[in-house]
Amino acid sequence: MPFTPADQFFMQYALELAARGRFTTHPNPNVGCVIVAAEQVDLSAGPQQWRDCIVGAGFHERAGGPHAEVFALRAAGDRARGATAYVTLEPCSHHGRTPPCAEALLKAAVGRVVVAMQDPFPAVSGRGIELLRNAGIQVDVGLLSDEAFAVSAAFFTKVAKQRPFVQVKLAASMDGKTALASGESKWITSPQARRDVQVGRAQAGAILSGAGTVLADDPSLNVRVEEFPADVLYFQEQPQAEQLRGSEHLDPALKKSMQAFAPQTGVAPKHVRQPLRVIIDHRGEISPQARIFQDQNPVWIVRTQALDVALPAHAQEIIVAAGADGKVSLPALLEKLATANILSVWVESGARLAGALLDANLVDELILYQAPKFLGSGAKELLTMTGPTKMAAVQEWQVVACQQVGPDLKITMRPDGALAK
Amino acid sequence: MPFTPADQFFMQYALELAARGRFTTHPNPNVGCVIVAAEQVDLSAGPQQWRDCIVGAGFHERAGGPHAEVFALRAAGDRARGATAYVTLEPCSHHGRTPPCAEALLKAAVGRVVVAMQDPFPAVSGRGIELLRNAGIQVDVGLLSDEAFAVSAAFFTKVAKQRPFVQVKLAASMDGKTALASGESKWITSPQARRDVQVGRAQAGAILSGAGTVLADDPSLNVRVEEFPADVLYFQEQPQAEQLRGSEHLDPALKKSMQAFAPQTGVAPKHVRQPLRVIIDHRGEISPQARIFQDQNPVWIVRTQALDVALPAHAQEIIVAAGADGKVSLPALLEKLATANILSVWVESGARLAGALLDANLVDELILYQAPKFLGSGAKELLTMTGPTKMAAVQEWQVVACQQVGPDLKITMRPDGALAK
Repeated sequence: MPFTPADQFFMQYALELAARGRFTTHPNPNVGCVIVAAEQVDLSAGPQQWRDCIVGAGFHERAGGPHAEVFALRAAGDRARGATAYVTLEPCSHHGRTPPCAEALLKAAVGRVVVAMQDPFPAVSGRGIELLRNAGIQVDVGLLSDEAFAVSAAFFTKVAKQRPFVQVKLAASMDGKTALASGESKWITSPQARRDVQVGRAQAGAILSGAGTVLADDPSLNVRVEEFPADVLYFQEQPQAEQLRGSEHLDPALKKSMQAFAPQTGVAPKHVRQPLRVIIDHRGEISPQARIFQDQNPVWIVRTQALDVALPAHAQEIIVAAGADGKVSLPALLEKLATANILSVWVESGARLAGALLDANLVDELILYQAPKFLGSGAKELLTMTGPTKMAAVQEWQVVACQQVGPDLKITMRPDGALAK
Repeated sequence: MPFTPADQFFMQYALELAARGRFTTHPNPNVGCVIVAAEQVDLSAGPQQWRDCIVGAGFHERAGGPHAEVFALRAAGDRARGATAYVTLEPCSHHGRTPPCAEALLKAAVGRVVVAMQDPFPAVSGRGIELLRNAGIQVDVGLLSDEAFAVSAAFFTKVAKQRPFVQVKLAASMDGKTALASGESKWITSPQARRDVQVGRAQAGAILSGAGTVLADDPSLNVRVEEFPADVLYFQEQPQAEQLRGSEHLDPALKKSMQAFAPQTGVAPKHVRQPLRVIIDHRGEISPQARIFQDQNPVWIVRTQALDVALPAHAQEIIVAAGADGKVSLPALLEKLATANILSVWVESGARLAGALLDANLVDELILYQAPKFLGSGAKELLTMTGPTKMAAVQEWQVVACQQVGPDLKITMRPDGALAK
C-alpha cells in the first residue's frame, strides 16, 4: 500500500467534509477535497521546520454548484503547486454543468492526487485518473474506499442498479410490535428518535408511503430542520473538524492550518432540501385536506390507473404498471423515480408496504428504531410479509450500526455483504 | 467527595477482582479487595521515590471460603500497617462461616478503609463500618457504589425483595419472531450468541424452563465451560488486570506491584458451578429420557400436585401452590427458590412462561439476543402475554447495554430505574 498514516488522516478529513453536503447535494454524490503542502512553519521556539499543512479544503455543496476540488483549489491558489490533493471520488474528466476537475488539478500543477475510489459513473470511470497520469502526475487510488462508497451509497446504488437506494425506516417495540391491539401507537418511540427521523428524511431524494399511513396518521412527511438533534451540525460551519482540531496529539502547525482553511461556505438550514413525497393510493382515498398537501412541496400520488379525483396544484397523479398482485409494481415505481433523477427513497409506511419491499428484495438499508417496551400478543406486528418457509432461505442482514437514541436503539442493517464491492 | 482519582483507580481494580468470582461465589455476593501503601521504589534512574503500590489483593472465590479481605491481608502481611484497604462491599462484622473481616482489618492496623457500598444484609448493615470507625480508622463509603451494586445485583435483589434476581433470556429475529410458521427454529441466533448464553447460565443459581421447551427442543440446560467465548477469562489467572498493566500511562512502580500481587488463586474451570435446573411440568409430560436428566446435576420438576411419575434419582418433584389461573404460582415458586438459597434465576423458556413473568412484573433483567433477520407474518411470536391496553400503562425498560455478539445484537434491559437505590 502506498498510503501513509498522514494520507489516512487527510482522506478521513476529506470524507468528513464530503458528508457535510448530505442534505443538499442530491442528486449528486457527496465529495470532499483537501489540499496538503509541506510548508515552513514557525513553532514556538527554535528554527523553522517543514510540516504538512492544509492549504485548501472544500466539499461539493449543491448540484449545479462547483465541485469539491474547485473550492479547495480556489482556497489554495499558488500553494497548490506541487501539493497533494486528497479527493474522495475520482475527479471528473467530462464537461458537465462545470468544467472537468481533472483539468483543474492539472492546471494548478499539483504534485500528487490521492483518490479514495474510482467513479463508477460510465462518463467518468477511470478517465479522470488516466488524464492525470498521462500528464505525469502520481495518482494513488483506493484509500478508505469503503468509507467513500458509504458517504455516497445512494449515488453508487443508482449507477449500479438503475434504481434509487431504498432505505426502510421501521419503529417497533422490543417484541416487534407497532401498535397496541386497540390501534393506539402514539408514541412507541421517543421524541429523540422522532427527531432523528427528520435527519434521515432530509438526506433522501423522495419519501415513500402508502394511503393507509396517510389515512391513519395524517403525517406531513416533510423535513423540519428545527427538529434536528442539536449535534447535527453538518449544515453549519466547522463541524467535526472542531474535534480534530481539539485533538491533543495533533501537530500545532497542522491544527492551525486546518483552522485557517476550514471551508467557510457553510450550508444554511434554508438550503436543506425537501424530498419529493410519493404516496401509493390505488383507490384515491386520500383527502385533499390531508397534511401532506398543506405545504407547497411536490407530491406524487401513485396508482395503476387514472382516477377522476381532484388534487391540489402541487400534487400530480402518476400512473405505474400493476404487478402480478394487481397493485402498483414496486420495481416499476422505483424505475420511474430513477428516471426522475431520484437517488434515494426513504420509506415510512405501514407493515404491508415495508413487508412487500422486503419480500421483493428491494431494500438496501433498514433503519429500525426499537423502544425498550413490550406490547404483548394482541399488538400489531411490524411487517406483513410472506417471509421464508425454511431457515436456510432466510435473508441474512448485517448490523452496520447500533446506537442509543434517547432511551431507544437505532439499528442500521444492510443485506449481508451489500456494500462489498 | 473525599475520593481522589487514585481511589477511583484502585476501587475499579477491586471491582474487576470481585467479578472474577461470578461463576463460583453463589449464593454469596462478589467482593474484591485491594490494599495500597505508599512505598519507596527505585525507578530506573535517580533517587528513590514514594509511590502508591499494591501490597495485597484478593477476591471472594467460593461460599465457605475466605472473604476478599482475608486473601488481600494475607498477601500484604506487615505492609498492611497504615495502608489503605479498598473493599467493594462493607466488611462483615459477624461471625459466620469465617471470622469477621472488620476485625481482621483492625488487627492488621490499616490506616484507612474505602468501601464502595454499605452491606444491605441485616446482620451487617453499617456495623462493620461502625466497628472500624469506633477504633479510630478513617472509613470513606460510597465510591463506585452503582458498579458495586451491579457486580452483585442478584445478592442485593434477594435481600431487598426476598426472592431471586430474575433474568429472562430471549432470542428473536428483528421482527420479534422465534420460529418460522413451520415451527423450525434452529438456529435463529448465531453460534457466538449461543456460546454467550453459556456465560449467562453459569452465573445463575438456577435455570428455569417449562415442559413445552423440554418437549420441543430437548435441551440439556447445563453449563458447558468448553463453549465459553475465548475472552471470558475470569476463571483463569490474571484477567483484565493484564489490560491495566498494559496501560502506557500507568506508573511503572504501580504496574510492577500489580503484577506481583495479582491474585494467584485462579478459579479453575472445574469449579464453575452447575445451576439447579427447575422445570415446570404440570402434567408430568417430560420423559425420564430427556437430556436434562442425562447428567448427574440436580433437577427440580415443579407442579401444583404430586403425580405418580418415575423420576431419575437426582431429580425431585416439587409441589408449588397454584395461582388464580390454576397453573404454578410464579411468586410462590420464586419464594421456594429463595428459601432454597437460590440467588438468581436464569429463564430460558418459551413465549408463555416469559410472557407470564413479564405480565406478573417479576423480571429484573431481560437479555434479548436479536438476529438481523426477518421471519414474516406467520412466524411464532416472542412473547405470549396479555400486554398493556393503553400506551400510558406500558412498562418502560431501560437499555443498560447493547453489544454485537457475532452477527447478532445482545440487548440488556432493566425495568426503568431498577438499579437506582
